[in-house]
Amino acid sequence: MALAPSVGIDPLRASAGATPPRWRERDSSLIPVKLVYADRATMLKAVDEIRQLLGEDLVSVDSDDLDEHGYSEWSTSNTDVRPVATVRPHTTEEVSNIARICTKYKVPMVPYGAGSSVEGNFSSPYSGVCLDLSGMNKIVAFHPEDMDIVVQAGVNWTNMNEEIKDTGLFLPLDPSPTALIGGMIATNCSGTNAMRYGTMKDYVINLTVVLADGSVVKTRHRPRKTSAGYNLTGLFTGSEGTLGIITEATLKLAIIPENFSVATATFLTVKEAADAAFKMMRRGIPLAALEMMDDVQMRVINESGGAGGRVWDEHPTLFLKFSGSQNAVQDSIKLAKEIAKSNSCRSFEFAKTEDEMQSLWSARKQALWANLAVRPEGTQIWSTDVAVPLSRMAELIETSKHKASQLGLFNSVLGHVGDGNFHQVVMYNPDNKTERQAVSDCVDGMMVRALEMEGTVSGEHGIGLGKKHCLQKELGPATIDIMKAIKDTLDPQ
Amino acid sequence: MALAPSVGIDPLRASAGATPPRWRERDSSLIPVKLVYADRATMLKAVDEIRQLLGEDLVSVDSDDLDEHGYSEWSTSNTDVRPVATVRPHTTEEVSNIARICTKYKVPMVPYGAGSSVEGNFSSPYSGVCLDLSGMNKIVAFHPEDMDIVVQAGVNWTNMNEEIKDTGLFLPLDPSPTALIGGMIATNCSGTNAMRYGTMKDYVINLTVVLADGSVVKTRHRPRKTSAGYNLTGLFTGSEGTLGIITEATLKLAIIPENFSVATATFLTVKEAADAAFKMMRRGIPLAALEMMDDVQMRVINESGGAGGRVWDEHPTLFLKFSGSQNAVQDSIKLAKEIAKSNSCRSFEFAKTEDEMQSLWSARKQALWANLAVRPEGTQIWSTDVAVPLSRMAELIETSKHKASQLGLFNSVLGHVGDGNFHQVVMYNPDNKTERQAVSDCVDGMMVRALEMEGTVSGEHGIGLGKKHCLQKELGPATIDIMKAIKDTLDPQ
Repeated sequence: MALAPSVGIDPLRASAGATPPRWRERDSSLIPVKLVYADRATMLKAVDEIRQLLGEDLVSVDSDDLDEHGYSEWSTSNTDVRPVATVRPHTTEEVSNIARICTKYKVPMVPYGAGSSVEGNFSSPYSGVCLDLSGMNKIVAFHPEDMDIVVQAGVNWTNMNEEIKDTGLFLPLDPSPTALIGGMIATNCSGTNAMRYGTMKDYVINLTVVLADGSVVKTRHRPRKTSAGYNLTGLFTGSEGTLGIITEATLKLAIIPENFSVATATFLTVKEAADAAFKMMRRGIPLAALEMMDDVQMRVINESGGAGGRVWDEHPTLFLKFSGSQNAVQDSIKLAKEIAKSNSCRSFEFAKTEDEMQSLWSARKQALWANLAVRPEGTQIWSTDVAVPLSRMAELIETSKHKASQLGLFNSVLGHVGDGNFHQVVMYNPDNKTERQAVSDCVDGMMVRALEMEGTVSGEHGIGLGKKHCLQKELGPATIDIMKAIKDTLDPQ
Repeated sequence: MALAPSVGIDPLRASAGATPPRWRERDSSLIPVKLVYADRATMLKAVDEIRQLLGEDLVSVDSDDLDEHGYSEWSTSNTDVRPVATVRPHTTEEVSNIARICTKYKVPMVPYGAGSSVEGNFSSPYSGVCLDLSGMNKIVAFHPEDMDIVVQAGVNWTNMNEEIKDTGLFLPLDPSPTALIGGMIATNCSGTNAMRYGTMKDYVINLTVVLADGSVVKTRHRPRKTSAGYNLTGLFTGSEGTLGIITEATLKLAIIPENFSVATATFLTVKEAADAAFKMMRRGIPLAALEMMDDVQMRVINESGGAGGRVWDEHPTLFLKFSGSQNAVQDSIKLAKEIAKSNSCRSFEFAKTEDEMQSLWSARKQALWANLAVRPEGTQIWSTDVAVPLSRMAELIETSKHKASQLGLFNSVLGHVGDGNFHQVVMYNPDNKTERQAVSDCVDGMMVRALEMEGTVSGEHGIGLGKKHCLQKELGPATIDIMKAIKDTLDPQ
């Protein structure tokens, strides 16, 4: 909604000779971006109309509200611009009407969920109206017999799972606990469960989407499987709100496993840990999760006292989760231990009780909070993620750690090893421009290396504003042009 | 490539007031379809240019060849029109050059793989050139360490799996054994393994696609997981060759399980069988496959003598496949048996040896061949598929069987119960127009009922020509308009 300029079509070119694809006619450089959108006075006029529609209470121009919806301290990319207003619709129809008004006045729209994204995904670089969807928090319909659920975009996934848990069903994604369904779909999120269960796109059966001009589209019915027509559901999933505003979704649910267990395995080097992890995968151990934290991250856990006071070995550590029948879990643990031991594992520990399981896994789950707890005052966290082919991950982690350490800054790594996807966290002083630039350059270097390894600049955080320049490098102009063409088709403004 | 007409844009409408999305300006009814394409003489001129490019051997205008590439006896929808030529490129570059020539002369292109699709997916209703991609059968690169493989579109999946099996990896889809990778991606195919492993879209890491104008696009690099940019891979997957010609793909591979077992359970009614199946799913038994065949299909198996001479109980039967560690498989069988027995199961049998396993599963795998073997001379098979929310499947199967039986024609049902997806097979005399029409009406009725249940008109066969009219009903004009807009954007001719 917010970014692409409208471009004109030259009717002469369109009718002369063989018609070129429309997207070949784009030349956005001809039109300065900012000219397209309304000025501030016109934006406020649109806000007045929206106020008449929604009522006073659901529209805010309070500066704290605008800051909260246009800036985030954990984002790698903020702008100085803020939306002119935030609005809080409760229904698809309201979103549609807001979109109609914004389109009429050429006001950019930016959808906002929990605000937990890290790449400037909800920045408002051209101001406009921020649509806060957190009020759309209704479960519309729950069909346990079909193993699916229909929810509004503002539903929180942990609340939803809590509400339906008695039926033995759950949405098996595992992003930030604060995340809302709409944002999870918009970024195609995942988390520690992705190895076993896949990413968000694998759980979206259909979407209700409001397009830029206010029209409402439902991508399909409720079959769990389909090969009918283009996969619009998959196109809107991961489009970060730029093709339309997701207002409702039907989600596939999975069965909560009856038995779980957890194990940890410690290694001298990241490479040894990664090698062991890949051998476990190749042996077909049905792991529910396969995570790694480096020596620094383990030290942070200890320093933050975050994992039940337990003191961990400060070496690269694999966190393994198993699920299935009791016998299946025991078989898996036995095999995982064998493989770990034959790969120079320093120690292998598995949970014998529910409490031990919680204690072992909590170290992994608390990693982000542990980082926040130990960071020196005045510093911020730059959290980035990449994914590369499995065999290249250990090498990229080691290079990235080395490069970040050369800056003399705190940095740690945690990885979803089963997907070749990992996060690096660097602490820096945002007021120190040189330091900020150095971190930015360091992250860019990591992106370049990930691309040289045929990887991606974002495994699960999305592109936002923070990685726009990287996406060009990743996909090249021909592929980006198609994406732009699809954007122009659905949202010419 | 072949179907959508080019439409003009009215510059007055485009510049007046707020710009409507381009796709809102479409009004294809203004332009008669056939006027857009070249006449036969011009098509043959294009073929001459292609001949110069590829050489004599790779271009054919032989009428048997044209029939084979424009008609199929197992298709529900054939036209009388044939392509003017078939061409057999071997590289992406050749496909690109062919596309450039065809675009220059406005010649429709239809990609062709194994020709095993059933919905007229490779018909050439406006003639043109058929691109037979079966010569593009090279494995380009195999990366066992990354668990992925790069292949040309014409690679046969069974050959590929045979070639790589020593590494313990496989592509876990299970469509027709003759299917080629390009067609499998184009229809987002699946088969008996979909419940455990998902559908083709879950295994496509990236695609190389030749667009209508000959430009070549690679959708992304080789990460197993990504949230970077729009999901073009997912958009081309399932687009049935209408957005571009898939020439190469990188595919995710899975681990071949170390242990398998198979069981069958017989019930008095389809409903009882389906109920038991759903209870097994809801208990979280990690089934590798969950298939059902009705009483008629079981009789066909017996009559065809196709399953090792064994005589089966002619009642609705579930076919269960288990995989995992030996203990896990035993736990699963035990639990499945308990659930089957408490759901009025007539008999439950599980394989104790490899031979028994083959024998039990072969009945399921030979279902299609068994139907072909017993069909009376002169009859054809109408094989259709739908998918509905899980809880509605038994009801739809029973109604569909009843309606087809009222025609007095042979009909059987086999279902991928775990996905709410099933096939109905009806035998009819294609020369008897009344009979053909009655079957067609009967299938249409089944589609209407599937849609009333919030299902889809195609779970895995695609839309082709045969179900174009149903897709309109399924998705409605707003959603279809977006699909058409995307088509127009990428392929204005």
